[in-house]
Amino acid sequence: MAEPIRFPDIPVYAGWGAPVRLESELRDLEVVQGKVPEDLNGTLYRCGPDPQYPPMRGDSIFIDGEGIASMFRFDHGHVDFRTRYIRNERFTLQEKARRSLFGRYRNRYTDDASVAGKNRGTANTNAIWHGGKLLILKEDSLPWEVDPDTLETIREWDYDGAVKAVSMTAHPKLDLDTGELLTFSYQAKGDATTDVAFYVVDKHGKIAHELWFNAPWAPMVHDFAVTETHVVIPFFPFETDLGVIKGGGPFYQWHPERQTVVAVFPRRGRPDEVRWFRGPTTSAGHMMNATMEGSKLHLDLCLYQGNCFPFFPTPEGKETEPVPPFLSRMTFDLASNSDGYETKQLSPMPCEMPRTDDRYQGRAYRHGYMICFGPDRAGGSMLGHLDHASGKLKLWNPEEASGIQEPCFAPRRPDAPEGDGYLLVLVNRIKEMRNDLAVLDAQKIEAGPVALIRLPTRVRMTFHGMWVPAQALETGIYPVTAMHEAAARAGVHA
Amino acid sequence: MAEPIRFPDIPVYAGWGAPVRLESELRDLEVVQGKVPEDLNGTLYRCGPDPQYPPMRGDSIFIDGEGIASMFRFDHGHVDFRTRYIRNERFTLQEKARRSLFGRYRNRYTDDASVAGKNRGTANTNAIWHGGKLLILKEDSLPWEVDPDTLETIREWDYDGAVKAVSMTAHPKLDLDTGELLTFSYQAKGDATTDVAFYVVDKHGKIAHELWFNAPWAPMVHDFAVTETHVVIPFFPFETDLGVIKGGGPFYQWHPERQTVVAVFPRRGRPDEVRWFRGPTTSAGHMMNATMEGSKLHLDLCLYQGNCFPFFPTPEGKETEPVPPFLSRMTFDLASNSDGYETKQLSPMPCEMPRTDDRYQGRAYRHGYMICFGPDRAGGSMLGHLDHASGKLKLWNPEEASGIQEPCFAPRRPDAPEGDGYLLVLVNRIKEMRNDLAVLDAQKIEAGPVALIRLPTRVRMTFHGMWVPAQALETGIYPVTAMHEAAARAGVHA
Repeated sequence: MAEPIRFPDIPVYAGWGAPVRLESELRDLEVVQGKVPEDLNGTLYRCGPDPQYPPMRGDSIFIDGEGIASMFRFDHGHVDFRTRYIRNERFTLQEKARRSLFGRYRNRYTDDASVAGKNRGTANTNAIWHGGKLLILKEDSLPWEVDPDTLETIREWDYDGAVKAVSMTAHPKLDLDTGELLTFSYQAKGDATTDVAFYVVDKHGKIAHELWFNAPWAPMVHDFAVTETHVVIPFFPFETDLGVIKGGGPFYQWHPERQTVVAVFPRRGRPDEVRWFRGPTTSAGHMMNATMEGSKLHLDLCLYQGNCFPFFPTPEGKETEPVPPFLSRMTFDLASNSDGYETKQLSPMPCEMPRTDDRYQGRAYRHGYMICFGPDRAGGSMLGHLDHASGKLKLWNPEEASGIQEPCFAPRRPDAPEGDGYLLVLVNRIKEMRNDLAVLDAQKIEAGPVALIRLPTRVRMTFHGMWVPAQALETGIYPVTAMHEAAARAGVHA
Repeated sequence: MAEPIRFPDIPVYAGWGAPVRLESELRDLEVVQGKVPEDLNGTLYRCGPDPQYPPMRGDSIFIDGEGIASMFRFDHGHVDFRTRYIRNERFTLQEKARRSLFGRYRNRYTDDASVAGKNRGTANTNAIWHGGKLLILKEDSLPWEVDPDTLETIREWDYDGAVKAVSMTAHPKLDLDTGELLTFSYQAKGDATTDVAFYVVDKHGKIAHELWFNAPWAPMVHDFAVTETHVVIPFFPFETDLGVIKGGGPFYQWHPERQTVVAVFPRRGRPDEVRWFRGPTTSAGHMMNATMEGSKLHLDLCLYQGNCFPFFPTPEGKETEPVPPFLSRMTFDLASNSDGYETKQLSPMPCEMPRTDDRYQGRAYRHGYMICFGPDRAGGSMLGHLDHASGKLKLWNPEEASGIQEPCFAPRRPDAPEGDGYLLVLVNRIKEMRNDLAVLDAQKIEAGPVALIRLPTRVRMTFHGMWVPAQALETGIYPVTAMHEAAARAGVHA
């Protein structure tokens, strides 16, 4: 006798977190305000979790759940929408069983016996297009390749066997000048290992460089950053304890007495070139960018003076109080013998999900975009645009009791100046339990959307995503990379 | 430069009528209350309109719009959901053009010149399974066959060329004893023709009988009824005027001075066996059933003392005031020489979308089900169960400000007594702009649902549909028909 499918009444499934689970498509979304710019042609891909079945243990955390990809294809003023679950091993096993088979977040020791040894990856965090492939990412496993037109799952992708790490970050960095993808793995040899692997993937999707080293403990590293010359990987005080997870405990524990440790190394570095820095107890989920200024490496990130994931408790089982994230700059002087670093706050308003004009990742940059939380944080969230040159923060507040999801930047043209383009922002209409997609002029967000595109449904929560120009999908290469290559062939320094 | 897709602010698109346009699927709907009975295995198919694009003329009526089919597949306590537009010629032409190309309701003279001569059928009214085929129906054209598992459109279906009528009713009647489908066409030779064609389709899907005759004018006949021996087709005072539609006017006009005219003939009748009856000006969209009592034929229908489609105006262009529908019985005495008939009201509460235990269509029956409108009709609608034996009306009111869609009956077993089974009812949660599917014990509707199945999305409006037992989908024949055939082979009178 089948038990009814019924989700537990827990905070993570309340309100906006209520499962949607719907796979859907809609050709020609309604544009209820303004017009979609005719020069905005390409696809916004996003990904987030939406629980396939009620959790085995009756509880969950907001970063868990099976991954569902979404896409908005812009074609000369028309926008087509589609969502599709990633049909990886976990999903298809559970689909067949019609129930959850994988237990607590990342803890294989809590799984149903029938799925021992199976791939428990959720594919729920990010969507990135590189080397002619659309990849869906979660740091618990390798990428899953999906069809960029249909979102149908194609295969798990280990770069033709070249990647030996067991997982890959959900936050690789694209270098749109060289066409390279820079990525890494932590716990790269399996649960609770200290191994870190860094990879450079060339513009054709081949592994061009790899570097293995060991972290000071079995860490959690959700994001990292790159400059034109260097890579920076922060290790905040989260640790995986094999004994704890074997006992059914949380995959990560927060160590409030422990320092932040940061690895910096050259892009094509060797193991002996990894340099370590140490600082106060902090944490962060997401980096905005990293840049070089002479010998100094600046890392801009949404920094918490405490635990950014309060649902990962201390070894004593204590959940820590939430603290607000502030955009901050850590500065590492590579010319100095010190293992310390400076930290300064860049903006007064709490914010998360920082993004830039992607063409300026690793480069000197001026414009940052993020979700901002005003004084009345319960009232939802706002879009923020921070001008690093002036220090000024502009805001767009979509409406009382609405929230926004991470903004993505789309340049007006491949050779447009930095920040000349659009921000694409999913707006959560919390009262109506559905979304709009707002298109804003990235230089005038305070003026409100140039187009407001209405969805009749809810896109529960897409953590991250990417704008892929139509030209990239057609040619297999980013137009900015193509432009720079043409300039190089012509002997022009790009 | 593409015009933005934007729907006009008109009453038919307001509130619950707002376009959804989403094609979706969800495996294992959440059962938020009770349990889905394990003996309820099969598929509920439904169909309704959901406008593909904003209307060409900026206005529409609620029975217009491109057809979207929905299905709920019940499998031992699990329920899977799917919706899909019918990809007929109209839909695919508009999909390609990314705009409406077909104009006013059923008026080809208001279409874009590019679609002259194309099939303008909307396929938006009903879903019926017969002869191993799932057919999507609208009286403006021939049926469209769709895949019963995926709802993908297969083809237009003219019964291998056997049907010469240009259209078929959306309300054919299944005889679950013989496995026959009884159906008809009006304006059967094209717009504004008076030709009516009646067809009997055998259980294998072959045309077994046809009868052509002429109506007194070019009529609208939305529904009809059959008994074990006879067919009854009412002609209410709606007429199509070719001059009016050529001038861009409404497809039907209401003639308040005209009588109701009813044709009655034997199931295998010849043209000279069509008998005509006349009565007061009335109208109806939907029949509950028809039965024989000696020489008397009873037709039970939701009868309006006036125009049931007030948006079809008089020849003077006057829209008539809405009048309430009451379940009523028209009685035609076939032994009498009179061309009159008796009418009596069966229930005091306005109601629409009448249904029965489908196994008793055309047979003496006791139980009727319908949407009831209480004194406070603005407050939504209720499910009603009328017991013809006692005259008692039971009600289930899903909740203040909720409404329901047409109920479908599913027998507990093929040989269960009349009314022993479930009612499947889409509940419109108007505040939340989404649906539940309620499963009620058909003998105890006042007790509320035995299972309440939650949808995260809205099924805009499904006019009609049908429950198809799993056994029928597997074997190609209704279990009740199979049971009766087995009894006949064994020499037992079923």
